[in-house]
Amino acid sequence: MFSTVLVANRGEIALRVARACRELGIRTVAVYSTADRDSAVVRFADDAVHIGPAPAKAGYLNIPAVVEAARLVGAEALHPGYGFLSEDPDFAEVCEAEGITFIGPSPQVMQRLGDKAACRALMADAGLPVLPGSTGALTSAAEAKDVARHTGYPVILKAVAGGGGRGMAVVRDPADLVAAYRATRAQAFAVFADDRLYLERYVEQARHVEVQVLCDRHGGAVHLGERDCSVQRRHQKLIEESPAPGLTPTLRDRMCETAVRGALAAGYTGAGTFEFVLTPEDDFYLMEVNCRLQVEHPVTEMVTGIDIVREQILIADGQRLAFRQEDVVPRGVAIECRVNAEDPARDFAPAPGTLTEFVPPGGPFVRVDTHAFADWQVGPHYDSLLAKAVVWAPDREQARARMDRALGEFRIDGAGMRTTSEFLRSVLAHPRFRAASHTTSLVAAMADEAAV
Amino acid sequence: MFSTVLVANRGEIALRVARACRELGIRTVAVYSTADRDSAVVRFADDAVHIGPAPAKAGYLNIPAVVEAARLVGAEALHPGYGFLSEDPDFAEVCEAEGITFIGPSPQVMQRLGDKAACRALMADAGLPVLPGSTGALTSAAEAKDVARHTGYPVILKAVAGGGGRGMAVVRDPADLVAAYRATRAQAFAVFADDRLYLERYVEQARHVEVQVLCDRHGGAVHLGERDCSVQRRHQKLIEESPAPGLTPTLRDRMCETAVRGALAAGYTGAGTFEFVLTPEDDFYLMEVNCRLQVEHPVTEMVTGIDIVREQILIADGQRLAFRQEDVVPRGVAIECRVNAEDPARDFAPAPGTLTEFVPPGGPFVRVDTHAFADWQVGPHYDSLLAKAVVWAPDREQARARMDRALGEFRIDGAGMRTTSEFLRSVLAHPRFRAASHTTSLVAAMADEAAV
Repeated sequence: MFSTVLVANRGEIALRVARACRELGIRTVAVYSTADRDSAVVRFADDAVHIGPAPAKAGYLNIPAVVEAARLVGAEALHPGYGFLSEDPDFAEVCEAEGITFIGPSPQVMQRLGDKAACRALMADAGLPVLPGSTGALTSAAEAKDVARHTGYPVILKAVAGGGGRGMAVVRDPADLVAAYRATRAQAFAVFADDRLYLERYVEQARHVEVQVLCDRHGGAVHLGERDCSVQRRHQKLIEESPAPGLTPTLRDRMCETAVRGALAAGYTGAGTFEFVLTPEDDFYLMEVNCRLQVEHPVTEMVTGIDIVREQILIADGQRLAFRQEDVVPRGVAIECRVNAEDPARDFAPAPGTLTEFVPPGGPFVRVDTHAFADWQVGPHYDSLLAKAVVWAPDREQARARMDRALGEFRIDGAGMRTTSEFLRSVLAHPRFRAASHTTSLVAAMADEAAV
Repeated sequence: MFSTVLVANRGEIALRVARACRELGIRTVAVYSTADRDSAVVRFADDAVHIGPAPAKAGYLNIPAVVEAARLVGAEALHPGYGFLSEDPDFAEVCEAEGITFIGPSPQVMQRLGDKAACRALMADAGLPVLPGSTGALTSAAEAKDVARHTGYPVILKAVAGGGGRGMAVVRDPADLVAAYRATRAQAFAVFADDRLYLERYVEQARHVEVQVLCDRHGGAVHLGERDCSVQRRHQKLIEESPAPGLTPTLRDRMCETAVRGALAAGYTGAGTFEFVLTPEDDFYLMEVNCRLQVEHPVTEMVTGIDIVREQILIADGQRLAFRQEDVVPRGVAIECRVNAEDPARDFAPAPGTLTEFVPPGGPFVRVDTHAFADWQVGPHYDSLLAKAVVWAPDREQARARMDRALGEFRIDGAGMRTTSEFLRSVLAHPRFRAASHTTSLVAAMADEAAV
């Protein structure tokens, strides 16, 4: 087993990873930017290395600085968390070249699946259902129009290098396609430094259901069931739950087995997520494969009892999965809410500030993953995630009531601080969420209802 | 269902009860002494009633004040938590007379089981194994000597009205019995205003294993498995776990079924605990029955997924248990550590003070039940429990490592503040605890080892 692991991330996920390492008896070394010098993971880790100023490009995205930190402290392995460099095959390759184990899939697999157009093609070949659309990256707006004519409208344009809900545009009217193609290309280039797009048929009133897989390096592959992540705002997930409510056992099995088939076809190793769009007719189509830990992994942990980060580390260490598919027995219902430092009254604008008070909820079946504490300065440099509240209960209605209780317990204060916790409670209370009849359009519909 | 419940306690358990009520949609009203006016449950509850100054006798033990508070706010039911009035049959009777549902067993059952000598006799009649000893309260030191001659030494003298580890004395040498009888009688009178004692054979190197039962008012009775609470200091539990390590399935079943048999024989309703002494030869004997929620109930919740406080409320509401014995399926291992505001370097003297910093641990499979927060004044008036850290894992060794990680994460600071968290880590690391070969003498043995 590794004796030292570098935690190459920040915020709650850095703490999450460091906790798993500590429990395995592994020495943990954090990296931190100047803005994060007093962060929770710096306090928690056995050692910490400064890697640069606040802007991500100079710090958490700075491959030479991160690799140098790993070398400096003698880390045999590195966990990339999510975001930043976690899905960058070049980074994984540099780690490999330096003899540092990258805790994640191989650079080749990340390359293959990270190119969304190539992933689509590969998975279609493996027999996975994909939406009608372009067979690879589009070469022109004219080609986009041509493909869209075949698939039918609405369509969605997506960046080949996309992720995290950015670089996407839904087009309902053929007359808007060319303008949308140009705008999305420009956005994709700005965000991902890669302006290639692809196009798919867009399914209205769909749900986002994703399957967690774990694959070792010896051909062992299991799924840990599915998550419903349909509560989104502008393609950003806000509330996730497991299991996805209302799926028939047959449909659930089909989706989960499809994900395992895809993982085996890709030669996947580590923890990965197969994201599907689920239509009202119970048809499902692969959207993309995420080659990393997901923000929402805790809901799966709560229902399966499996520590996914621990499993990532064991897999990277070359160990075989210690359980088979039939040993994975989900129990009850887990819900996660992402409490962001944003102001719902100002269109969810980031609301940074210094916390004067931060008391998380506690008690039965409540888990909080957070890097926040009183006196912590929530800065403007990184994402606005302040805490993940996760609850478990025997059934969905009890879990919903428990989450409402937990969100109400947060005591978060500080000049300028605003959070989304009350907004999240309003979603939990919405009749469509309660009935689990909501789709990815729920939050937009709530905004429309409020505007009336 | 009740629309308003009075939470007739303080500290972490008051918050625990209020959380369960909130999740059931019940309005919660806290009571508080002057010292507790800014407490967490006062902040959390829908309403709060002042019941007197800090000394418990004037406040939390003041039956007329508590009942008046319930009447004032229109509470249909009252939850007594643990300690204070929770095992006082007179209190339960006054509640009943006032038309307030006491969330616990009937006054008659509390009376019958609360008299430890009477409980011994009743349970022996029902066929439960009890240790050889006096058949009722002792009437004289001479009778004590006579009984001890029959049982053999060592023996333990216990207060008939005892509980919480107070009013007990182990006697190894017959020459010490009379003095011990007099001293324990005086102590019992001082603490419980009842100087009656009984006597049992004392088992050396034993384990404390207890069984949680739930009984509804319609004859439904289940057990929720057992807990090992052998890590004690002067009969006070410090670390509890479920399941009890190393029991054969046969022994576990026998102990659990014995508890259910006892509960049915007593006409028990609500949540209760049957405490057994378990000998190295795997013989077990009933010590006592606790007619209330236990401090350590969370470990059972973590392995069974059952919210025990919720069940107490549903039972008091007259509902039938919604599950049968075969539906209770324990999973994995849970451990609880009681973090007390005490100074291990000064013989665990209470170390009150004002918290300037209080950051509890978080992350996967960690639950913290606490009423503490930064700025909270830990006063000298009540018990020294600051927080209960509870963890879950698939196996005991992972749970142990997780608890060590969680205890290390606490950030507790304040002038004069000392806690037992590092001491608890030393117990977790002890070879006998690791091997689960420890008995109730472990902590005393550790003190001896440290003194050498």
